[in-house]
Amino acid sequence: MVATVTSRALATAGKGQQTKAAIVEAALTLASQVGLEGLSIGAVAEIMQMSKSGVFAHFGSREELQISVIKEYHQRFEQQVFVPALQAERGLPRLQALFDNWTRQTSAEIDSGCIYISGAVEFDDRPGPVREALVQTVNTWQAAIHKAVALAVQAGHLRASTQPQQLAFEIHGLILALHYDARFLRNPGAVKRARQGFEHLMALYQTKI
Amino acid sequence: MVATVTSRALATAGKGQQTKAAIVEAALTLASQVGLEGLSIGAVAEIMQMSKSGVFAHFGSREELQISVIKEYHQRFEQQVFVPALQAERGLPRLQALFDNWTRQTSAEIDSGCIYISGAVEFDDRPGPVREALVQTVNTWQAAIHKAVALAVQAGHLRASTQPQQLAFEIHGLILALHYDARFLRNPGAVKRARQGFEHLMALYQTKI
Repeated sequence: MVATVTSRALATAGKGQQTKAAIVEAALTLASQVGLEGLSIGAVAEIMQMSKSGVFAHFGSREELQISVIKEYHQRFEQQVFVPALQAERGLPRLQALFDNWTRQTSAEIDSGCIYISGAVEFDDRPGPVREALVQTVNTWQAAIHKAVALAVQAGHLRASTQPQQLAFEIHGLILALHYDARFLRNPGAVKRARQGFEHLMALYQTKI
Repeated sequence: MVATVTSRALATAGKGQQTKAAIVEAALTLASQVGLEGLSIGAVAEIMQMSKSGVFAHFGSREELQISVIKEYHQRFEQQVFVPALQAERGLPRLQALFDNWTRQTSAEIDSGCIYISGAVEFDDRPGPVREALVQTVNTWQAAIHKAVALAVQAGHLRASTQPQQLAFEIHGLILALHYDARFLRNPGAVKRARQGFEHLMALYQTKI
């Protein structure tokens, strides 16, 4: 009997986890379109064809739902941008792969928007746990980029005087300009310009100047 | 009598213009804090201590008010970034002045936010006259930057193969990264990094490569 109860409890818990994951998935899609601030328990319940109390059973508050969306977005960003770059050789090839994946990810988001970019505008002066969660995940991937640059310096692929924070700032600027030009202005050629900008940076940071 | 009526009519019209300008000023301050989409006739009326119908008498719709705010912001941007740069010698000095003014303007907005950046996120997929007005003003200042770059090439200060759109894209990226790091992440040193990034670009575009 005990075993049966346990497996039933596990099955229920498993189903609960699945539902929770499905809610986060729906909320992420919604947030990509209307922003994190556009999220509401009610709107997500409607998409999921659930009652609001059903969604509340998984997320005690709207903030908790927003934070779960940020964490899920971060996981996907890691899976799509950072993890595949680890296949490339340490140093410049890995930094190049990272930038290529990031550019691809940003281009794929032209129709939906990047939560790191829209969230930065939405939460720039709204203190609280959602802003904190967003800043923390941004700091996490920024640190990963600094590390990738530092490894390229260590490998002797970039000049020794390279400041990882400086180069990471310049690379981030290219991604932001790509997002701005492609998603807002709908300028063709934005991806090409971002790639060209990266080549320029690499040329500059490989010289002895 | 005609003269008296006319001067009274002029005085009334003048007062109307002043009120209208004061409403736009209040709306611009509000939009800098809450975004263009956060603007409402009601909220602006409250700040102005006017009735909603009083505001409506000047702006027939919320969209009209939003577009007036964009136009006012654009005028100030021109006055603060472009006009003073014309004092500098044509070519690299003027491009440098333009970047310096733009950086200063972006830093000054750390506590309020840039409508060109927040507006891009708010209106990236909201078609309509407000989006069109925003895209049009952005295209206007982007064209002015392309022109400044082209003049620096003509003056022989940048190499002949320089593509104005490419360099303008890279400069815009630095401004976007500055805004992101300073306003959202509150990273100290963002201004320094933007300036350093500009020096890097100038070094790169002055070489014969």
